[in-house]
Amino acid sequence: MKTLIVYAHPEPRSLNGSLKDLAVSTLRSAGHEVRVSDLYAMDWKAVVDASDYGPEASRPLKVPLDSGRAFEAGTLTPDVLAEQEKLLWADMIVFQFPLWWYTMPAILKGWVDRVFTYRFAYGVGEHSDTKYGERYGEGTLAGRRALLSVTVGGLEPHYAARGINGPIDDLLFPFQHGILHYPGVEVLPPFVLYGADRMTDEDFPDIAKAWEQRLLTLESTEPIPFRRQNFGDYEIPSLQLKEGLEPAGRTGFGLHVRG
Amino acid sequence: MKTLIVYAHPEPRSLNGSLKDLAVSTLRSAGHEVRVSDLYAMDWKAVVDASDYGPEASRPLKVPLDSGRAFEAGTLTPDVLAEQEKLLWADMIVFQFPLWWYTMPAILKGWVDRVFTYRFAYGVGEHSDTKYGERYGEGTLAGRRALLSVTVGGLEPHYAARGINGPIDDLLFPFQHGILHYPGVEVLPPFVLYGADRMTDEDFPDIAKAWEQRLLTLESTEPIPFRRQNFGDYEIPSLQLKEGLEPAGRTGFGLHVRG
Repeated sequence: MKTLIVYAHPEPRSLNGSLKDLAVSTLRSAGHEVRVSDLYAMDWKAVVDASDYGPEASRPLKVPLDSGRAFEAGTLTPDVLAEQEKLLWADMIVFQFPLWWYTMPAILKGWVDRVFTYRFAYGVGEHSDTKYGERYGEGTLAGRRALLSVTVGGLEPHYAARGINGPIDDLLFPFQHGILHYPGVEVLPPFVLYGADRMTDEDFPDIAKAWEQRLLTLESTEPIPFRRQNFGDYEIPSLQLKEGLEPAGRTGFGLHVRG
Repeated sequence: MKTLIVYAHPEPRSLNGSLKDLAVSTLRSAGHEVRVSDLYAMDWKAVVDASDYGPEASRPLKVPLDSGRAFEAGTLTPDVLAEQEKLLWADMIVFQFPLWWYTMPAILKGWVDRVFTYRFAYGVGEHSDTKYGERYGEGTLAGRRALLSVTVGGLEPHYAARGINGPIDDLLFPFQHGILHYPGVEVLPPFVLYGADRMTDEDFPDIAKAWEQRLLTLESTEPIPFRRQNFGDYEIPSLQLKEGLEPAGRTGFGLHVRG
């Protein structure tokens, strides 16, 4: 297995840093290839601007079109090209990050904004009245799997079905479904650690054991069964879920998970 | 009315730029005070790191604690202090941004990550077994209102209740509820423009009219009735919604909206 770990935390001696280090050592010991994109160590440029598209940048700037033109011309910046190459190399992608304000840190969002260009991650395949692209289950990154490994300051009941923060599956849906499933990645159930700010060194052995177990079973773990766009579940071109497909009472993001 | 506009788009001659300009001129013409945080023009630092907390940064860095210590010591960086001052000055906050990968651009997330420090936006009030802070309807920014003005590349049905991208209200929930309602801001229903990438100059007059109408009725618009944490709807300290409060069939994020 070829694993890319995308890691976003400013402190190497953090829980996130320890989980990233453990992922590298555990996977390598098991014979897998591992590459790491340590966004803070790379001083990753988080902000999309005209300099990303060099000679392909329009005036005025058009982010989707210009990113697609630069992608097709091979003139994206070297940092972005390197990340796209790693994604194509990988068959497993692990994201290690803290949940800040109910979503990923800005540096990781900036990795998505800059690396997931038009023609690479979206705007792929035929777009017409009968087909709306290869996306949500198809696309450039099909055949790959991903896992979010997330540390959360709050407590688990606050993220449960009736918890005040909203269910963790719904909070992660825009990342898991909208960013990863969209270009074809299969997404495994996340590894979430709650109460991270209250943990001490004494808690780490149990956490490490659970994390190792997840890492060593990545290949046999069933992905979240997100519905695929072009296989009969949706009306085209309205892209609304056909009536009657969902289990009784299911609404919202959960509609887009089968079964 | 004192309005702060937080604007996040790299191109001044974009739809977002035009909407921001129109908001400034419309509100000022109506006699309101307006300040703008143009994050790209300010070259806003998007990434949280130890340099944000100067002498208050621990080794190893602890983002929540260190940000709270720097806030209390008055030693946050001048750019962050300026934004906190603007938030305290404002009674209305308008966010103007494009939806990129189903959430805000990295530069705007970085504004949240850096400005919404511990002790300013969270970690406020008594935290005990009977009270879990002043949050979700109370907090430092209570008495203020906010509005998201969002441009979306995709089409409206794709963001409807059964649309493949998920309902727009759910996609915006982590921002509207998790980031804004949390420190006490009342959130107005968003102004969302779909199909933004397909719009032409000919579409703009109608858009401008709709946007002006929203801007001139901000003070009389009813906010989204998000439930408040400390007023009887939630069990303490599990912070789960009490049984029976929700309308039949409502699940997920929608549980946290009254009525």
